[in-house]
Amino acid sequence: MNVYPAALEALIDRFASLPGIGFKSAQRLAFHVLSLPEGEAEDFASAILGARKSIHFCPVCQNLTDGELCRICANPARDASVICVVADSRDVYSIERTREFQGRYHVLHGVISPLAHVGPDDLRISELVDRVASGEVKEVIMATNPDTEGETTAKYIARLLKPFGVAVTRLASGVPVGGNLEFADDATLTRALEGRTEI
Amino acid sequence: MNVYPAALEALIDRFASLPGIGFKSAQRLAFHVLSLPEGEAEDFASAILGARKSIHFCPVCQNLTDGELCRICANPARDASVICVVADSRDVYSIERTREFQGRYHVLHGVISPLAHVGPDDLRISELVDRVASGEVKEVIMATNPDTEGETTAKYIARLLKPFGVAVTRLASGVPVGGNLEFADDATLTRALEGRTEI
Repeated sequence: MNVYPAALEALIDRFASLPGIGFKSAQRLAFHVLSLPEGEAEDFASAILGARKSIHFCPVCQNLTDGELCRICANPARDASVICVVADSRDVYSIERTREFQGRYHVLHGVISPLAHVGPDDLRISELVDRVASGEVKEVIMATNPDTEGETTAKYIARLLKPFGVAVTRLASGVPVGGNLEFADDATLTRALEGRTEI
Repeated sequence: MNVYPAALEALIDRFASLPGIGFKSAQRLAFHVLSLPEGEAEDFASAILGARKSIHFCPVCQNLTDGELCRICANPARDASVICVVADSRDVYSIERTREFQGRYHVLHGVISPLAHVGPDDLRISELVDRVASGEVKEVIMATNPDTEGETTAKYIARLLKPFGVAVTRLASGVPVGGNLEFADDATLTRALEGRTEI
C-alpha cells in the first residue's frame, strides 16, 4: 500500500518484529517515537545501542551485567553457600522482589526442551556444576517453572549434583496465595496436598 | 531493587515509556533487543533516528512524509477536487486500505476536545481552509471518528467551509458489516435507521 514514507515504514517494521507487538501496536509505537522531542528519540536509540554493547553475562552466575561481576555476585553480604537456580534473568528479578532470599543465583538461560531442540549442553549447567564442585555450596534451590520442562530440568540437575553431597531443594508448588480452591486445577491441588505442612 | 544492570534498566524504562507498554512487556522487549545480533540492534537504533529526523509534514495535506510532498499529494492521478479530512495519519492508512478513495487527504492532527485543551487553533484547520479557498476543491469528506469530539470537529469545519460553496459530506455511520443487530448499541442503531438507503 506504501502510504507511509519509507523511514516510517522501516520503523514500524522494526517495532513489529518485536515479540508480542502486532502491526497496529507497531504503528502506534512508531507514531509515538515521531512525536518525541529529537533529544528523547536520540536517547532511545542510544539506550538500545548502550544496552546491546555493554551488557554481557556474569562469569560466576551467568546473569546479565555491565560490570565485571553482577551486582549480586559482587555483594559480599550475599550468602555464597546457597544457590538459587533459575531459567531466566527475569526470574532473578521476581525472586529479588520478595526480599526473602539472601543467597546467590545461577541463570541457566533456558530449560531442557527436546521439542525446541534445547539440550543440557545448550544451558549454563556445566558452569553450575563447577561452582558446586568448588566446595563452597551447601544448598542448591531449583527454581525453574513448575511445568514439564522446568521439572525435567530440575530433576536432571539434581541428579548431576548428587555426587557432590549438596542439598538440592525445589520451590514449593501449590494453591497461590489469594487463590481460590474452586478454580485451582487438579495438578496444582494434588501438589498442594502432597506438600501440605503442619500448622 | 536494582537487580538489572544500569544499561538494561535504562532500556526497560525507555520501552515502558511507550504508550500501552507496561513494565512486564518492557522487560520482554528489552531482553529481546539484548538477544538481537549487534547489527540488528544498530539497525533498530538508526530506524528510530532516521524516522525522527527525515519525517516532517507534507506542506499541502499535513500528512507525514520524508519527501517534499507526500506520496498522495505528489501523485497527479489523485483527484484534487475531493479532500478527505481525517484526524490522524493512521486514518489515511485505514482509508487507503479500502482502495475506494481516489481523492486527496487533509490530516488535522487531532480533534477539537475542550477536556484535553485542544481547540481549533491547535489543529491544521487554517491550512484546510486555505486549500478550499484556492478554488480547486468541490467536495470535502469529513472522516473524523463518529464520537462526540469527531462530530464536533466535523460540524465546526463544515460551518467554516460553508461560505466557499463546497459540498461538505460525512462518512456514513451504522451497523458494521458482519456485525450483529443484537449487539449494536442504541446510538449506532439510531444512526443506521436515520441513514437508511433504498435497495
